Amino acid sequence: MASQQLGRPTLASIAAAAGVSLPTVSKVVNGRQDVSPATRALVQQLLEEHNYVPVARKTLARETPLVDVVFTALDSPWAVEILRGVTESGLDVVVTTLARSPGADWVQGLIDGGRRGALVVTSHLTAADQRRLGSSHLPVVVIDPVDMPGQDVPSVGATNWAGGLSATEHLVELGHRRIAVIGGPEDFLCSRARIDGYRAALERAGIGVDPDLVRHGNFHHEGGYDQARALLELPDPPTAVFAGSDEQAFGVMEAARQAGLSVPGDLSVVGFDDLPMARWSSPPLTTVRQPLADMGRMAGRILHRLINGDALDTQRLELATHLVPRASTARPR
Amino acid sequence: MASQQLGRPTLASIAAAAGVSLPTVSKVVNGRQDVSPATRALVQQLLEEHNYVPVARKTLARETPLVDVVFTALDSPWAVEILRGVTESGLDVVVTTLARSPGADWVQGLIDGGRRGALVVTSHLTAADQRRLGSSHLPVVVIDPVDMPGQDVPSVGATNWAGGLSATEHLVELGHRRIAVIGGPEDFLCSRARIDGYRAALERAGIGVDPDLVRHGNFHHEGGYDQARALLELPDPPTAVFAGSDEQAFGVMEAARQAGLSVPGDLSVVGFDDLPMARWSSPPLTTVRQPLADMGRMAGRILHRLINGDALDTQRLELATHLVPRASTARPR
Repeated sequence: MASQQLGRPTLASIAAAAGVSLPTVSKVVNGRQDVSPATRALVQQLLEEHNYVPVARKTLARETPLVDVVFTALDSPWAVEILRGVTESGLDVVVTTLARSPGADWVQGLIDGGRRGALVVTSHLTAADQRRLGSSHLPVVVIDPVDMPGQDVPSVGATNWAGGLSATEHLVELGHRRIAVIGGPEDFLCSRARIDGYRAALERAGIGVDPDLVRHGNFHHEGGYDQARALLELPDPPTAVFAGSDEQAFGVMEAARQAGLSVPGDLSVVGFDDLPMARWSSPPLTTVRQPLADMGRMAGRILHRLINGDALDTQRLELATHLVPRASTARPR
Repeated sequence: MASQQLGRPTLASIAAAAGVSLPTVSKVVNGRQDVSPATRALVQQLLEEHNYVPVARKTLARETPLVDVVFTALDSPWAVEILRGVTESGLDVVVTTLARSPGADWVQGLIDGGRRGALVVTSHLTAADQRRLGSSHLPVVVIDPVDMPGQDVPSVGATNWAGGLSATEHLVELGHRRIAVIGGPEDFLCSRARIDGYRAALERAGIGVDPDLVRHGNFHHEGGYDQARALLELPDPPTAVFAGSDEQAFGVMEAARQAGLSVPGDLSVVGFDDLPMARWSSPPLTTVRQPLADMGRMAGRILHRLINGDALDTQRLELATHLVPRASTARPR
């Protein structure tokens, strides 16, 4: 799209010039009533000065809004699940990874490229990026935030605590008492919530939490593999492991195989995510389904509403998780 | 981007009006010399009539070209591997699935949306879509075509025949003689090439091809699972299976587990693709690496050259496959 120098500013640059949010400019362009008369007059004056109105009408009436979705990296099947949902939300989605376009150019690139907003699926935006994004007045929605974003940033996550509870209750109901948990990095809120759900399930069942059985690793295969090897070498090893991700759970299964243990005969394993490959492992993995595609779709719809200047019912949405029992869990021997 | 009615046509609409290709228009805009004087004059006249030049100069000088990448569906980790490469090729990539935007609107949407080209990763474009795409003068590159595309459509694939050869030779070298192959659907050229590589390896080793051991299924888990169940029920079952995809190979491993067979002790399994989860299966999967990200990156670069009006060295590129030995193959008992 064109820039101010060419007399064809974006909605975002009008918003910046007026000192108002992009949704407010959208409302004025759309002829909506819920804008103060003073703001409306200022925005209309800027739109006229910049000869913006005809293009804006066309854009809003006929085009699908073009937005960026930003991943840390496209190195996981987890990402494609979210992306699938996002592409179903009625937006045209440009895929960006921080590996490719970090730093100062990114936010300016969004504006120059005619983007109407961004979906952020990463914890690795710098404070400077976040400031630039804030002052660009482009609407932003965060998916599965590692830290709680500021109250003014809408976000979509999953019910991690309830997921940890249901995974652990499933193992308790099968008769397990020595149940280990492997979380992700300790500073990830989603991981803390899952482990707190695990604790709650044990406490409800009158089982004490053994600190030896609470572990942390990265969310990848080696995180599960390394922690499971350590767990299986304990004097009193667990009979079941609740892993922080499906990928971690596959690492636990491989550690069991190498130790000569069968799953689920000698060790029950529960994952978290329900990626497509949870059905493909041998045995198929019992796991907690995190509705990643639904989260992407919902975040896209929220962004669409912000672009249209509509109000949100809530800034924070958590979609339900639920246990999917398959063949990697059984009664203890 | 804007439309002709607004006096801001796209390069593609200029190309259509002039009856020339988009790269030719790009060449004129870029001041390149390899355009005939008559064509140059016509294009320049149209560019001036439509007041196009300043925007075009800005676009070409400063913006990253915006293109669509079209998948049948985002239902596979295979897709994210290709996408990762595409996003690294210096293009801004809008992800589209045919599930979302089929039919007559799609090509018009590309033009209205200011797209400079498209990458097609699907066999499901209709003949009408292909005609519209052709007459739009937008450059297109096909990734991993199921059928050979027309000679005028550049494409990027992998050396499927050589991959089938190396997978089968690996099993022969381990001492296997009863080696089964499971291909994809019979009309997929990539699958035929892999099976022909399998035949060539057997013939080089002086082993006859047993038609009972040559199977076809879909490329998904159940394709491998169903065919492996049938193979394992043969009076003289195979001691090794070369599957048409990693996902199929996981289905073979599950069929073996359910039959009480261990992998690789009782049955060796080789996959094809080397998706991230090939390392996550238990045991980790021996497979043929298909450089999916490299294929995406290469296709993106080719599209970039076409957008810039540069000539291609070749219309068809096949990137090398190679065997990645892991723990799912061993000597027969």
